[in-house]
Amino acid sequence: MSPAAVSSSAIALADGKPREADPRSVDIARIFAEALRDERAHRLLGELIAEAPKRLSGSEDAARAVRFAERAFRAAGLEDVRLEPVRVPRWERGEVETLSILGANGAQLAVRALGGSVATPAGGLEAGVVRVTSFEELSARSAEARGRFVLFDRPMDPTLADPFAAYGGAVDQRSRGAIEASRHGAIGALVRSMTLATDDHPHTGAMRYDMAFERVPAVALSTLAADALAARIAANPDVRVRLELACRTLPDEDSWNVVGDLRGTTIPEEIVLVGGHLDSWDVGVGAHDDGAGCVHALEAVRILRDLDLRPRRTLRVVFFMNEENGLRGGLAYRDAHRGELDRHVLALESDRGGFTPRGFATDAGPELFAEMSTYVRLLEPYGASMLRVGDGGADIGPLREHGVPLAEFVPDAARYFDVHHAETDILAAVHPRELSLGTAAIAAFIWCVANAP
Amino acid sequence: MSPAAVSSSAIALADGKPREADPRSVDIARIFAEALRDERAHRLLGELIAEAPKRLSGSEDAARAVRFAERAFRAAGLEDVRLEPVRVPRWERGEVETLSILGANGAQLAVRALGGSVATPAGGLEAGVVRVTSFEELSARSAEARGRFVLFDRPMDPTLADPFAAYGGAVDQRSRGAIEASRHGAIGALVRSMTLATDDHPHTGAMRYDMAFERVPAVALSTLAADALAARIAANPDVRVRLELACRTLPDEDSWNVVGDLRGTTIPEEIVLVGGHLDSWDVGVGAHDDGAGCVHALEAVRILRDLDLRPRRTLRVVFFMNEENGLRGGLAYRDAHRGELDRHVLALESDRGGFTPRGFATDAGPELFAEMSTYVRLLEPYGASMLRVGDGGADIGPLREHGVPLAEFVPDAARYFDVHHAETDILAAVHPRELSLGTAAIAAFIWCVANAP
Repeated sequence: MSPAAVSSSAIALADGKPREADPRSVDIARIFAEALRDERAHRLLGELIAEAPKRLSGSEDAARAVRFAERAFRAAGLEDVRLEPVRVPRWERGEVETLSILGANGAQLAVRALGGSVATPAGGLEAGVVRVTSFEELSARSAEARGRFVLFDRPMDPTLADPFAAYGGAVDQRSRGAIEASRHGAIGALVRSMTLATDDHPHTGAMRYDMAFERVPAVALSTLAADALAARIAANPDVRVRLELACRTLPDEDSWNVVGDLRGTTIPEEIVLVGGHLDSWDVGVGAHDDGAGCVHALEAVRILRDLDLRPRRTLRVVFFMNEENGLRGGLAYRDAHRGELDRHVLALESDRGGFTPRGFATDAGPELFAEMSTYVRLLEPYGASMLRVGDGGADIGPLREHGVPLAEFVPDAARYFDVHHAETDILAAVHPRELSLGTAAIAAFIWCVANAP
Repeated sequence: MSPAAVSSSAIALADGKPREADPRSVDIARIFAEALRDERAHRLLGELIAEAPKRLSGSEDAARAVRFAERAFRAAGLEDVRLEPVRVPRWERGEVETLSILGANGAQLAVRALGGSVATPAGGLEAGVVRVTSFEELSARSAEARGRFVLFDRPMDPTLADPFAAYGGAVDQRSRGAIEASRHGAIGALVRSMTLATDDHPHTGAMRYDMAFERVPAVALSTLAADALAARIAANPDVRVRLELACRTLPDEDSWNVVGDLRGTTIPEEIVLVGGHLDSWDVGVGAHDDGAGCVHALEAVRILRDLDLRPRRTLRVVFFMNEENGLRGGLAYRDAHRGELDRHVLALESDRGGFTPRGFATDAGPELFAEMSTYVRLLEPYGASMLRVGDGGADIGPLREHGVPLAEFVPDAARYFDVHHAETDILAAVHPRELSLGTAAIAAFIWCVANAP
């Protein structure tokens, strides 16, 4: 770009008509300027991560994160800051997680146990591997699977424009792979990582067992490791591998959701909830997932307060515990607040990373959807004007059955699965300006919701 | 994100109405799938950079880039591939560029000569420094500036949502700083880098001289260096620095624009031009600026050809030479094609980096703008549906006076000025998927333009 190429900042709608004046536009301009003024959101995220990098439910870091969050809520000026108890599952990775190809051309492959996996016996399990790309293929080759490992090797489809759709089309291998492997008599599940990147970082994540079948160990392989193992199997169908895992499940542990309010001026009994989840996986430091979402929520409300934009309704910030491997925080919030759920006018979650904002998704009915579309139109100058149908976030999901409309912040998704549940989810992967833009978009949206007549 | 949180891929417009069916949607879906299938665009960019990393006009790398581009055009199946001569200015940075604070607490500051700067005498220039944040302040303090360096230290305004607006509000210091310094008798211009990042990478760029004033040397300081020097001046207004530069201007050199066509089926005489600029600065490797734009243009047309989407009008790819420090390529293209400019129905440039697509900007009149708005609406599922008023790119600027409508690809801008004209503009800063998404958006847009009835 040369100086001459700096284009006019004039912005027209796609239909060429000028935007109608809306007094909220002035508030929103102030919100964005405040959010972009410095890198405060990114600093807060850095402080959380420095204090509690590995926030897996029930861990010491998770407890430290709760205490950090309580202090941060108070520092942001929230009222009635409280810790609400959540009894969480506790799983530990242990010191050993290796997958080795046996024989003359042996190699060690990059793996991470899936969250909740059982261990192998000490010394590991040795067996052959059958590679499949679907549960249907596994059923058809059931006899081959018996006594072997199953490599679930169907990649996320890169040709889908929405990476979340590609994730949705592959993640059954991670969540149900151990069940399906065991159903066919296999001794373990080796799952290609849920990512569009070709690299050597395994991506962990949640998995399930089924009471009907033996619990077999399950790991994620990096995409390069999956490719290498697939190539070895193609060259020699009898290749054998050794898997060793030392992970373990411990008794449930006490933990907490962190909750705080910015009380509404004229309708304080009505609540607009905004939140993210405080827990993370123990691989990487959960900078995008979901440190960014927590910072989005808290900073959004902090900005409104500091700008003296006090909404009519109460804004409630919730940092949920245990989204990743249990959803106990979302359930506990629902149970603890049953008496006021009919006064929750909206619950909004941010759990898609700290990238440039594109807009929002919601399960709201036609009337509220139409109302929200007037909010996102105000975000057009900031590139965050998308509104689409969506489920809302996992933590707020339990509120749906109680009639609470749900919404989700939708940032750009191109880079999300590069870092999701992997060592690459670090502070440096979160761009300070992108994080601040998301914070501002959320602040603007909840300001409109909470201040609507 | 847990599996349960994967939202529906159903997309609704903000007004809640379903999108009307358009046969071009099918073509566009194929275009995106082809672009996202692998990382071909990123590989091509990597090959260009490996072959010719420092493509400053008139350099050996620039000549290598021209030959590489010619081969790449042929490999992409373009017809009538030709090199069109451009006589370009030639400037070399030289081996020495240092700025030192003198005295007991001396320090060396990160600087890069601005493109076109004269050298200092061997051994450098020593003087005091006057720090200003505007040309008006410099005028008011003219007497202080005489015989000193001027530090132009007004940052890009981070509170502006559009980083290009922030750039536009600060870049006069870089482009005109040497003139204004010399006007007031100063001996050199020290310019705070044009970036929103706080780091130690100086950002070079174009500057001008004015015949009426002596040519004084000019450098960009990293933002950290500018802050450090400002702090030193605040502590001791008499602090002295030494600047040494060995850059030089050489005689003009032969170079070329690279041009190739995909001939239209039924109206081949009408031309839709799509391009970027092949030259770069010699700091970093011009991965975003503008290797990405070149790859966008060539790959967009390659994709249409490979999908057998042959448009009615001719698609012309142009890699312009010398956008950064002269614009001679843009002028040469205009002069060589005067006879057919009235048959250029659109010229589209990509020169804002290889980030996630947001949409397009254009100077088109109301009728064409309205027509284009129907194209970008088809890009809504891909998040690239913005259409706004804008100038088009620098290289195609000379076509405006001949009535050619101009357009510009607009990607996300949050990270652009982190890398612009700096050592940070490297291949690793370009995300393969983001680059492919931009390629697809451009391919879809030019397909609509070139195939319109």
